[in-house]
Formats: sequence, C-alpha cells, structure tokens
Amino acid sequence: MSHKFNWEKLQTFTEELFKKAGVNAEDAHVIAESLIEANLRGVDSHGVVRSDIYLRRLEAGMIKTKGEMIVESDGPVTLLDGQNHIGAVVGSKALELIIDSTKKHGTAVVGVKGSNHFGTCGYYLLKAVKENIILMVLSNASQTMPPTGGIRPFIGTNPFSVGIPAGKYQPFILDMATSVVARGKIINAAQKGERIPDTWAIDKDGNPTTDAEAALEGSVLPLGGPKGYAISMFIDILSGVLTGAGFGKYVNNMYENWKEPQNVGHFFIGIDISKFMPVSQFKERIDRYFDEIKSEPTAPDVNEILIPGELEQRATQERKKNGIELPLKVEEELRAWGDKFGVDLSAALIETPQTEKN
Amino acid sequence: MSHKFNWEKLQTFTEELFKKAGVNAEDAHVIAESLIEANLRGVDSHGVVRSDIYLRRLEAGMIKTKGEMIVESDGPVTLLDGQNHIGAVVGSKALELIIDSTKKHGTAVVGVKGSNHFGTCGYYLLKAVKENIILMVLSNASQTMPPTGGIRPFIGTNPFSVGIPAGKYQPFILDMATSVVARGKIINAAQKGERIPDTWAIDKDGNPTTDAEAALEGSVLPLGGPKGYAISMFIDILSGVLTGAGFGKYVNNMYENWKEPQNVGHFFIGIDISKFMPVSQFKERIDRYFDEIKSEPTAPDVNEILIPGELEQRATQERKKNGIELPLKVEEELRAWGDKFGVDLSAALIETPQTEKN
Repeated sequence: MSHKFNWEKLQTFTEELFKKAGVNAEDAHVIAESLIEANLRGVDSHGVVRSDIYLRRLEAGMIKTKGEMIVESDGPVTLLDGQNHIGAVVGSKALELIIDSTKKHGTAVVGVKGSNHFGTCGYYLLKAVKENIILMVLSNASQTMPPTGGIRPFIGTNPFSVGIPAGKYQPFILDMATSVVARGKIINAAQKGERIPDTWAIDKDGNPTTDAEAALEGSVLPLGGPKGYAISMFIDILSGVLTGAGFGKYVNNMYENWKEPQNVGHFFIGIDISKFMPVSQFKERIDRYFDEIKSEPTAPDVNEILIPGELEQRATQERKKNGIELPLKVEEELRAWGDKFGVDLSAALIETPQTEKN
Repeated sequence: MSHKFNWEKLQTFTEELFKKAGVNAEDAHVIAESLIEANLRGVDSHGVVRSDIYLRRLEAGMIKTKGEMIVESDGPVTLLDGQNHIGAVVGSKALELIIDSTKKHGTAVVGVKGSNHFGTCGYYLLKAVKENIILMVLSNASQTMPPTGGIRPFIGTNPFSVGIPAGKYQPFILDMATSVVARGKIINAAQKGERIPDTWAIDKDGNPTTDAEAALEGSVLPLGGPKGYAISMFIDILSGVLTGAGFGKYVNNMYENWKEPQNVGHFFIGIDISKFMPVSQFKERIDRYFDEIKSEPTAPDVNEILIPGELEQRATQERKKNGIELPLKVEEELRAWGDKFGVDLSAALIETPQTEKN
C-alpha cells in the first residue's frame, strides 16, 4: 500500500538528506525545492524519485559539492562552467545569471557546461516569469533516442521549454521532452504486460514494435519523426557543442557511468517583455489570446481547451492540499537514506492512510 | 505536360514581374531570390507558386511598396515595423538588423510586426550561417490548426526554424511547420481520391478522419498533439502578442481577406558563435557530431542518416543542374502575369521538353 506525504514536510526531509550528504544548506534547499515542485506539478518522474541517484552519485564522488562555479560574461552573453556541481544548483545559478543579464541588456543568453541532470525545466521557468521575463530553457541529456533512420540511441530526449507570464491567467509553461512519449510509459506497459502503439519505440534492430519489452531493449522515438530528431539535435548543439559541454555520446548516463561526471549542457535565452511594450499591455494581450483560445468550440469528448502548464498548476493545488503519493519502492529508497542519515521520513506522512491505490 | 525552367532565368522573369508591379529593383530581387530558393530546395509550396497571390495582393493595395519601415533599437533588442511591405522584404530587413545587432552585442533579438507571408525561414537562415551566426526564426501565420481539443482552426502552422553553420558539412537547417503534415499533402490525396492516415487532420466536427475531402473542410492537426499545439502557441506569442503584430484570428488570411493587411509577426534570435569559442573550434566540434551521427548503424530499409537541411541541399544541386519543374497550373498563372506585364516566361524554359512526368 502506498502512502501520501505532506509536501512541505517531504521537502524538509529531502533537504535534510542532502545536507547530511555534504551539500550546503542553500544548495540542499534548491535541490529539494526542485524535486518537490516536480512532484507537485504531477511530473513524478523528475520528483523525489531522483533523490536516490543524486545521493548515490554524490557518495561515489561523481558530483561535487565544494568549490566555485566559473562565470564568464561579455555583454549579454554568459558562459557558466558548473564545475560538476549538482544539476539543480548549476541550473539555479544559470537562472540567476539570465535574470540579471536579461534585465540589464533586454535580452541575454547563458550557456552552461559541466552540469548534471537538473530536474525539470519548469522549475526555472516559473521563477523567471515572476520577473516578467520570457525564458527559454534547453538541456541535453544522455543517449535515449536514435536519429531518424538509426536503430540505437544517439541523442537524448533533450527537453525544449518556454515560460511566458500572463495577467489573470497562470503563466504559459511549455516543458516537453522531444520524444513521442516518456520512457516511463513504456516501462509501465511492460510491467502490466500491455502492448504499445508502434509509433512509440523501435526494437534493438530498428524495427517498429508493439512489444514493450522489446521497446525497452531498443530506443524511444523522436516526436513526429524527423521533426523531433531535428529539434533534439538543435538543443544538443546549443547546449553541448556550443558551450563546451558533452554532446551525443559524450553526455554520460548518470545511472550507468560511474567513472566520469555527466558533463550535461544547458542553454538559457531570456527576453525582457518591457523592451517591447509595457508589461501591463502585454498581459492584456496574452489574456485576450487565452480568453479566445479557451472560448473555442471543443470536440465531442473534450471538456475544455487547456493552456500549456494549466494541468500542472491544478495538480499543484490538489497535491498541496491532499499530499504527494509515492510508490512504495520510492518510499523504501527514501526511508533507507533517512535511516542511514538519521532523518525520519515518517514525520512527512499524512496521517490518514490512502487505500484507493497501491 | 509540365515543363522545366532554368532557375536563373526563372528568377529574372519573377524579378521582372515584381518590378512591373511597382516594386523597386532591390526589393524585387529579394522577393524573386526567396521564391526561387524555395523551389531549388524542393519546397515548392513556398516557391514561385506564391507569385500570383503576392501580385494580386499588391494590385489590390493590400501590400505596400513605398515608404520606410520603422526600426526601434535599444541595445540588443530591436522592434521592426514592416509597415505592410511584402514579407520577404520585411524579413530581409529583419535579417540585416539581426546580423548587425548580433555581431555588435553577441546575442540579439528582432521582433517584427506589420509584415506579410515572408516565404521560407530557410532563406534567412542560410544567409545568417554564412556570418557564423546561429539564427532562430519564428513566424506566425493565419489560422489553420485547432488547439488540442478544439475543432476549428485557431492557430497557424507557425514555422519553427534554426540555422547553424558547420565546417566541412553543409549548415544545419531546421525549418518546419508545427503541423503533422503540410496541408498540401492532404490536397494531393483528395485530388487522387486517396485516404489519409487518421492522425493528419480532423473533420469540421472535430473527429479524426481518413477522408481527405472531409479533412480539407476541417483542420490540419498539430505535430505530436499537445506538444505541437504548445510550440505553435509560443511562436504566436513571441511573433504576435509580444511584437504588437496580429495573433490568432488577427493574422489575416492572404487568400481570403481582401480588406485588411495580414499583419503577420516574426521573431528572430541571433547568437554569435565566437562569443563562446573560436569559430574554428566550434566547426570542428559540430563536424565531429555530424561524423558520429552519420556513422550510426541504420535500420534495414534506410541507406543513410541525414542532417536537417541535407536533402534540400541535394535538391538545390539537382535543380540548378536540371531545372525547376513547374505544374502546368503554376506555369499558366505565371504566363498570364508575364503577358500582362510584357515579360516572356518562355525565355526561362529549358529547351528539352520533359516527358517523364506531367
């Protein structure tokens, strides 16, 4: 039977784990906040489930917790060397730099090398839109998708993301992998013995497959075929080739490579709305846009038209109120780390046991 | 029977048509070059087939040929008001501005309002990469796609594009509509009486359809469902909401609206490679990336892995050598304009008649 956890207490627990693992208080806060926010938004694949791998890589010396990152700025262009700090910490430094630089110059870019898996892009977008900045965040990732026509992983499901503030509406938050579906969906199908659509993945010989097990031995496919392949490549080029980070096979898999840092690269592009028109005018225009799109007639089986980020906002409200449910396996992993470090996971449990799911 | 045309002579013919229609020599050159380049690259939907609608809108006073565009710059941020000049002319002005501003500041953005259909994004990308600039070009367009869950067109198949220079390889040119397929493919299927996959379009009631005729009365679907919808929206917001151009229903359809200008918006983002590393080093890195991706094993029915833009480069070589074949209908339209303005289309014909297709 799985349990639900109070989001604030679960965040405190997670923060304590990272502090005990040698991360300073400020960085531990950032990491925990990033993970819990993913759970709140319903993106559980990037939530506290990642604590275990982050902590294992910290213990193995594959991620650094000490030393300064290196910042080189020339006008609106900044290169940040994350010096192999934990991804959410490097990403947050990049966010600070892009906000400052965008406010100063009107538009700016921050390229990042020497980073690690940095959680969801949405975490950074949500902070930028509060500053009335339009932010684009790109990141490469280790190999999971073949090029179009290929049969084995060469590029990552490199995320593409854009955050845009609105007026009366929640901000527009587009945060997507460049694959057809997340690999997690295929894992779920395999566990349930279900078949998958033949558009999701290829087997290890490069043939389309509806067999989830065969798909897991193969590769997940890019969104829309050559279009997703090309978008993923462009992200790899900006995040990796241009910044000096890894790209293609040089972005190491955090689960498999225990000899080298990941050397993930990111790329942030910021635009100050006020350089184009008064922010209030922009917000009126975007509210009108959303009003009109949400007033469109819907298909017979559809209740409403959604703005990107709206579902995640609703999930946040619901989970802040009712708690974050964790799979037993994740709970057990966290409890083991808690036991090791003397931090009590049970303190974050919501009293009423949840029985409807397991 | 269709004919083939010499690309240079067809470009001269097209240029002459626009000059006779009142466009100055420099602008007429840009328009013709943009159209012919699309044909050369195999993107016939954006080639000389568009001459007719551009000329008709010029004649109807829906596009201006006189007067200065308005440029407002503040550091690396520029807003260009195209003053309803022809799209390729406005786009070329934006290109000039983004190249200058990117070289000066290291990164820059140019937002554009008051424009028209500006041809392919690739036309601008190819010029920027020669300057060792990474260029992203976005544009909104009139309504052809529903929002996810909707049943009628609300957003355009707003193109997303990125150009990146390489060393020994041709540049990386990603230039894609945010729809599953171009509407032209559905028109072709309807003409041939063929069915279409049910993932391409919906009928006027919002139901998936394999009936090409029903699809044409409905809407073309966004790439990858909600992902393509969200990408198209973000492009509309940057190109339209932020710049002051039209967005959603306020981008007028050039074929249907004969009372108002289109008010299309574009958005250009430039990045100077040399601010990150020496250009030679970047080119070595990207060549290595392309070497590695092209060395990947291929699926059984696939000959080679392609880099985005590679097929279009090959088409250009082939068509420069063998000519551009035009459908009879397009030839007739061009001939009628030629007759009206006293410009001879036949001068651009390649002597040997082509008999293999009609």
